[in-house]
Amino acid sequence: MGIISGKEFINRINQLQNDIWFDGKKIEGNISEHYAFKGLLKTKSSLYNLQMNENLMNEMTFLPSGKTEPIGLSYLQPKSKEDLIKRRTMIEHWARHTHGLMGRSPDYMNTAIMSFASSASLLNKRKNCFPEHIRTLYDQAMKEDLSFTHTFITPQLNRSQINLMQTEQPISAKIIEKNKQGIVIQGARLLATQGGLTDEILIFSAPRFYLDQDEAFAFSIPSNTKGVKFICRESFVLSESTFNHPLASRYEEMDSIVVFDHVLVPWERVFFYDHVEAANDFVAQSSFHAFTIHQVVTRQIVKTEFLLGIAQLLVDTINVSEYQHIQEKLSEIIIGLETIKALLEKAENDATLDEWGYMRPSLIPLKVIRTVFPKIYPRFTEIIQLIGASGIVTLPTENAFHSDLKEDLNHYLQGTKTSGVDRVKIFRLAWDLTMSSFGTRQTQYERYFFGDPIRLASRLYDCYPTDKQVKTVQEFLNIEK
Amino acid sequence: MGIISGKEFINRINQLQNDIWFDGKKIEGNISEHYAFKGLLKTKSSLYNLQMNENLMNEMTFLPSGKTEPIGLSYLQPKSKEDLIKRRTMIEHWARHTHGLMGRSPDYMNTAIMSFASSASLLNKRKNCFPEHIRTLYDQAMKEDLSFTHTFITPQLNRSQINLMQTEQPISAKIIEKNKQGIVIQGARLLATQGGLTDEILIFSAPRFYLDQDEAFAFSIPSNTKGVKFICRESFVLSESTFNHPLASRYEEMDSIVVFDHVLVPWERVFFYDHVEAANDFVAQSSFHAFTIHQVVTRQIVKTEFLLGIAQLLVDTINVSEYQHIQEKLSEIIIGLETIKALLEKAENDATLDEWGYMRPSLIPLKVIRTVFPKIYPRFTEIIQLIGASGIVTLPTENAFHSDLKEDLNHYLQGTKTSGVDRVKIFRLAWDLTMSSFGTRQTQYERYFFGDPIRLASRLYDCYPTDKQVKTVQEFLNIEK
Amino acid sequence: MGIISGKEFINRINQLQNDIWFDGKKIEGNISEHYAFKGLLKTKSSLYNLQMNENLMNEMTFLPSGKTEPIGLSYLQPKSKEDLIKRRTMIEHWARHTHGLMGRSPDYMNTAIMSFASSASLLNKRKNCFPEHIRTLYDQAMKEDLSFTHTFITPQLNRSQINLMQTEQPISAKIIEKNKQGIVIQGARLLATQGGLTDEILIFSAPRFYLDQDEAFAFSIPSNTKGVKFICRESFVLSESTFNHPLASRYEEMDSIVVFDHVLVPWERVFFYDHVEAANDFVAQSSFHAFTIHQVVTRQIVKTEFLLGIAQLLVDTINVSEYQHIQEKLSEIIIGLETIKALLEKAENDATLDEWGYMRPSLIPLKVIRTVFPKIYPRFTEIIQLIGASGIVTLPTENAFHSDLKEDLNHYLQGTKTSGVDRVKIFRLAWDLTMSSFGTRQTQYERYFFGDPIRLASRLYDCYPTDKQVKTVQEFLNIEK
Amino acid sequence: MGIISGKEFINRINQLQNDIWFDGKKIEGNISEHYAFKGLLKTKSSLYNLQMNENLMNEMTFLPSGKTEPIGLSYLQPKSKEDLIKRRTMIEHWARHTHGLMGRSPDYMNTAIMSFASSASLLNKRKNCFPEHIRTLYDQAMKEDLSFTHTFITPQLNRSQINLMQTEQPISAKIIEKNKQGIVIQGARLLATQGGLTDEILIFSAPRFYLDQDEAFAFSIPSNTKGVKFICRESFVLSESTFNHPLASRYEEMDSIVVFDHVLVPWERVFFYDHVEAANDFVAQSSFHAFTIHQVVTRQIVKTEFLLGIAQLLVDTINVSEYQHIQEKLSEIIIGLETIKALLEKAENDATLDEWGYMRPSLIPLKVIRTVFPKIYPRFTEIIQLIGASGIVTLPTENAFHSDLKEDLNHYLQGTKTSGVDRVKIFRLAWDLTMSSFGTRQTQYERYFFGDPIRLASRLYDCYPTDKQVKTVQEFLNIEK
Repeated sequence: MGIISGKEFINRINQLQNDIWFDGKKIEGNISEHYAFKGLLKTKSSLYNLQMNENLMNEMTFLPSGKTEPIGLSYLQPKSKEDLIKRRTMIEHWARHTHGLMGRSPDYMNTAIMSFASSASLLNKRKNCFPEHIRTLYDQAMKEDLSFTHTFITPQLNRSQINLMQTEQPISAKIIEKNKQGIVIQGARLLATQGGLTDEILIFSAPRFYLDQDEAFAFSIPSNTKGVKFICRESFVLSESTFNHPLASRYEEMDSIVVFDHVLVPWERVFFYDHVEAANDFVAQSSFHAFTIHQVVTRQIVKTEFLLGIAQLLVDTINVSEYQHIQEKLSEIIIGLETIKALLEKAENDATLDEWGYMRPSLIPLKVIRTVFPKIYPRFTEIIQLIGASGIVTLPTENAFHSDLKEDLNHYLQGTKTSGVDRVKIFRLAWDLTMSSFGTRQTQYERYFFGDPIRLASRLYDCYPTDKQVKTVQEFLNIEK
Repeated sequence: MGIISGKEFINRINQLQNDIWFDGKKIEGNISEHYAFKGLLKTKSSLYNLQMNENLMNEMTFLPSGKTEPIGLSYLQPKSKEDLIKRRTMIEHWARHTHGLMGRSPDYMNTAIMSFASSASLLNKRKNCFPEHIRTLYDQAMKEDLSFTHTFITPQLNRSQINLMQTEQPISAKIIEKNKQGIVIQGARLLATQGGLTDEILIFSAPRFYLDQDEAFAFSIPSNTKGVKFICRESFVLSESTFNHPLASRYEEMDSIVVFDHVLVPWERVFFYDHVEAANDFVAQSSFHAFTIHQVVTRQIVKTEFLLGIAQLLVDTINVSEYQHIQEKLSEIIIGLETIKALLEKAENDATLDEWGYMRPSLIPLKVIRTVFPKIYPRFTEIIQLIGASGIVTLPTENAFHSDLKEDLNHYLQGTKTSGVDRVKIFRLAWDLTMSSFGTRQTQYERYFFGDPIRLASRLYDCYPTDKQVKTVQEFLNIEK
Repeated sequence: MGIISGKEFINRINQLQNDIWFDGKKIEGNISEHYAFKGLLKTKSSLYNLQMNENLMNEMTFLPSGKTEPIGLSYLQPKSKEDLIKRRTMIEHWARHTHGLMGRSPDYMNTAIMSFASSASLLNKRKNCFPEHIRTLYDQAMKEDLSFTHTFITPQLNRSQINLMQTEQPISAKIIEKNKQGIVIQGARLLATQGGLTDEILIFSAPRFYLDQDEAFAFSIPSNTKGVKFICRESFVLSESTFNHPLASRYEEMDSIVVFDHVLVPWERVFFYDHVEAANDFVAQSSFHAFTIHQVVTRQIVKTEFLLGIAQLLVDTINVSEYQHIQEKLSEIIIGLETIKALLEKAENDATLDEWGYMRPSLIPLKVIRTVFPKIYPRFTEIIQLIGASGIVTLPTENAFHSDLKEDLNHYLQGTKTSGVDRVKIFRLAWDLTMSSFGTRQTQYERYFFGDPIRLASRLYDCYPTDKQVKTVQEFLNIEK
Repeated sequence: MGIISGKEFINRINQLQNDIWFDGKKIEGNISEHYAFKGLLKTKSSLYNLQMNENLMNEMTFLPSGKTEPIGLSYLQPKSKEDLIKRRTMIEHWARHTHGLMGRSPDYMNTAIMSFASSASLLNKRKNCFPEHIRTLYDQAMKEDLSFTHTFITPQLNRSQINLMQTEQPISAKIIEKNKQGIVIQGARLLATQGGLTDEILIFSAPRFYLDQDEAFAFSIPSNTKGVKFICRESFVLSESTFNHPLASRYEEMDSIVVFDHVLVPWERVFFYDHVEAANDFVAQSSFHAFTIHQVVTRQIVKTEFLLGIAQLLVDTINVSEYQHIQEKLSEIIIGLETIKALLEKAENDATLDEWGYMRPSLIPLKVIRTVFPKIYPRFTEIIQLIGASGIVTLPTENAFHSDLKEDLNHYLQGTKTSGVDRVKIFRLAWDLTMSSFGTRQTQYERYFFGDPIRLASRLYDCYPTDKQVKTVQEFLNIEK
């Protein structure tokens, strides 16, 4: 096998019959026909088709040595800077196809799986660790072009630093039993984006203080494993009209809470368990951060370009480019875009081979972006709102343009060089990106993608060496160290 | 007559059968039963009932000398500081009833009409001016407890400063004919909040450069006047569930574009016409700004208190009050709230009688608030998002809590001292205020309530006397003036 | 006796012969003739004369009942709102005389002494507490018009929260012995502004975590007490030229480190000792904060007005008032000024009698100012720099205007309506306020006047009641408390 | 000839006997011995010696083909990316030697002269243009290792946009006569940094609206040309003590106003005159911006590293690295530093050959830095002040540490792992960089180095192509262009 078509993907997801709950009801029938998921699945389907597109195929796939079936390039383990750039090109193709608005396009999780496999040796010969299970999963994922979701965030009674969260019944998903078949998981995880819409669900522990041993595990299981339940939030799909909701109708990814009710994870799917140190090491020392941030940032650049295009089109539509404060606002977006592009390029230029022979992008520039983007993206959406001003809200709908009002609307809402209908399209897009429930969820998504922004700044500081700079100052002052 | 009940209000609006277009269709039947308007009209109805509430009646109404029917206090022309405080108390009652979320509670426009009547003498003996028509309308409004909307914003092909907007067909509403019966209006106005949901619509010209003579007019006509058409935007009412959409289900006010198609405004309804100077003077020198900003700011204080309550409740729910950055964020809201309260009080303390004997609040403190609030309100909503973090989006719906998921949700989503269901209620409120389409429209509404924020700063500077301070410096430096 | 003249003040300070070290040398001879102190002492002298000025005397002094000698009004214990306003008027007079630039004009510390006396009863009947010593000092201070300095800040090896600072030799001033005569102090305090330039030095403990018992004391002693040494920083007086250094030549207050070397504090001068709880209570519950912040804020308003005058004069001089970004910058200063004024007025309006019958300004508005001013003052100085642009640095000196260059300079440096010499005067003032070593010390002084700005925000949050707002939200959501 | 030694440089400057006025007096005797200039000239001298340093010589100089005398690498016309990197390495050496604090190290103006020569062909065959004079000067400069200053800023009565500045006597330097020998210049220019301390002074017109023909010229003349007068500002050298004033004592560059009194510029020194279009083109199309920003930014990176070192050393000294807000502040500096480094690298990576065969760095990344640095540098200095807090001002002097106070100071001012004397050194450095008159001038210098920051943002927007992004959005919306 190898890469799959959009149709194959849809069929497979439909057949899984995952246990998904929406607005208090379990979803029956084909998920691909449900109003809340249909737009997204259609878009995902088109992404898979892109891998089979003749013109793109050699940029979207690779042939593993000795194989004849092309594999999705998101699974490629880079061994040179050229490989890194190939990976970036592939990510850009998928991102451009969705204008950077699909946070969980398949390459994101495929990259994660690839990074796990590339660092599996970290677990070699450690207690309760099964690096070979990771490698097997990676092989299977490539062969079947599997799709994944995952979830980091644990439920929290209490975010106080000194809280130890003791309850009788598990809240955060944990191991409650180990037996011949595998480990048994009980509890919940919050926020699986596209939860239930993928073949597999990957669970692993994010490092934190006081990580309990029974929460220190990692595994991947099919989404339809017995006892796994996905509880959806309200859908932000308001209609199928791409005029009214140009983005939500296509890119609303859904988030869900995942409940594990006595879920048996077979041993051959366990990567490690009961091993706090391995859990921490695996995130800190594997290539997970280097490769996934590389993917994320590439997508965020495409999204920022889309946003810049919208901002400029708004400016053109109402002809406000002469205002100094408008120029400053646009220049803010330009500065953000060029800064991230330069940092990404530097991360690639400074990439180095890790101990297992994989070419990792340099982390410092990527961590700078990771600290900056969650702050500038919300500001960019604010800039769009500030350009659109009061005109961004009072917008007629598609049906109005197909009614007796059509002529009035085209007349009264015309822009400088734009018909009423085009003007409304542009403003609705600006609104859907920044002010609809879909849009604000996007903003919050980018803001929290990498975790608590406050901690990101601290972590950047923690990992940044300043010895050389300090020594220079000490020498200047003739101070002994 | 005098004050009316909620029921009377609803009946009257239903009977008007205004020409309202929603999603490409003209609304037929009772507007109060239409899903997009029903929640709002119910809330407005409850506001009118408040005037008749025995406990509040003496704070919500007044008896004009020689009359026996109580009149809504929003129509009171203040002649003393006590009157001003009475007015504020009345505004607070209505604002608290709606937590400051109804931008166009009846007192807003009633205050505008009252300020017009109090300054009508400005138009005495000027060409094309009919101050007596204003006074007549004011009397009628009091007697019938009329409700109003208005709209400032004109359609703009082009917001460039040097543009003169010439088209063959009028775009911005203007006088195209004068005849025995009155003036005839053709063209559009953008953004009438609650357009079509009030008895009357008031139109007058905001001062601007190059105001054309045929756009320099003011009048009020019944909303159902022939040729007046209201074109609604998409509704942000997503359901009637106050659990899922606690604010949108109650307070979604709707905005509309108003189209005038050969609308005849009878002479007795015209305040002035063809008089650019009168149009400018009337806004600049009347008590319109002093009294309406006083109303708006009182409401905004109540809204800020509501927002502070939500922020604190979020903090309590996830127990994060120990974090210094959380404390700083809350203190930002506190600073904003106390600042506005102090400035409003100062505006009242420094109030002075105008030349016609009405007690006007001092404008400088009010203009300071007007410049500040459009910046801090969006920041406050951002603070709520930053406290809520990723937990503010992935929220189950009311139906989920009435399904088999109930127990799971109550268990897994519990807060420090809060059940799962209450936690979700609190987070949904935070979301509806700051991230739903309803909430972001509120943000944009407050941001642009007083017009372009950039210009507000300039206008504050323009009106602020610095002579004394400059002179002090000159004396210090022995510089001759 | 009672109020003293400037001359009397100078004589008294000269006679004290305090142990002041400047640039490695002990100062000998009259301090009033030393280049680093002469400008300041002349200014202070003129402040004392203001109390005797016939036109101001009844606003600057009061007659205690049964007395015939007028007392400085800064010592008045306010018993009514009128008294508070009298106090403010007195503070304004002194502040205007120095344009708010003298942080430690005599009224600041006089107010502190007055607040101590007004709250002395807090110490009644507590162990190691001598409230009567406070009252005696207050009486003596009034009778002799004493001047004071004080110092809060303790030396710190280490500002880490978990550090307990143990060294063999005391670093922070502490009690090392108690004997018949009194307590013996050893150690240092940092940052006494005008240290050595006042009659007395007041020492008391600021509340903090882990306050040691032997650091929990308060007393006041003459500045020339044996063993008390003042170590000055570099002087920011660069010349006596008021043209070149209009502010530094007049208002440079000097800061010093105070070293206590076996200093005996006689029992009759001790307010309390060895009593951590009393130390904390006395700051938290006395009227110290209410009255001193009231003084500080009044001065800061005058300073902000001076700053606004300078900003406007710069704008006029180079004729840039048409620029929108300039208007916005000026409006920022206006907003800050009007906000603080409104909050101060509210603090007075909301003043209440404390349990001992003294009228305390309301603390919440004052604490809001205390949190805000340290952030806006530095911004205002930045605004001045941004208006002055590159022209604020390259400025000829007074001597150049008295040389052959005079004509050239007057010609080439002329402003729109200003001669070259006046333009340079204005720009030098802007520079001296914001960019000279004197000016940046002022900025840092205002930034840290009330302590660590980060903690100020936290403390405002801590003291602010939000129960009512939270309850409103809970009721809205039907959540049980 | 070729490169010169520091001693040769000093001798040459002394011999010029430029007409420099300081505090109202013309400087007589050797400028290198004057207290205000001696520190700087010593530092400059050490920079020239660096070119002759054996270890660095091959990185600091180059051998033009066919020559035997090494030439300073700042004169190298880059023809490849390797050349660009060579140039950067040379700039770094000089910058590191002065920690980026000398804005006008010789490479800055040498680079400008080199860029002029590389673009001289732009002036070929245009009226009143003499490209060969530029080339001759460039050759001479290389041969004699000449030093230059220049000045852009013209005196302005009035910065209003609509002002045309008419006076009878020229204010801004202009051509008042043309004769056989050359052009005659009368008027002033503001702000020549190191004016009078260089061999030559280069004058050319910055593009602006309404540039008068008689101000549209460019030339270079010896600093001691008859009629050229330099009027200095106050010196910020306060002492020779590198303990008290570690930066000012070494790096105070002085700024001066330049007055031209009937100055004859010989024809062979004129680059062009009376040619507004040439003046504008020469700045816009030459490699001037590309090469000089490349130099400036390289220096600014070194300066930022020095600043980061100081910030970290402060943090270590008082042991505050555990505070989240401190971590965030440091991470701000790190982000700024890494961002600029990445953008500079991108500018080099994207460099292209211009039409005359010179390798120009890409302008977009450089313009992004140019827009950003003037905002972040002042913020970085503020961060240093915020870390230093109140401890940054009250600092004893060098003499105090050589007096009887020594022991006390070392005891009471010790840091966590630092002696009192070292702690004071570190804090004095922080103060001298950010709060002394020297330091604030540095801040203002970086803020205005590239001109009005408001305009820089506008210019970045103006030059940035957004067509592709706009087209993407239009296609997404099916909007016709």
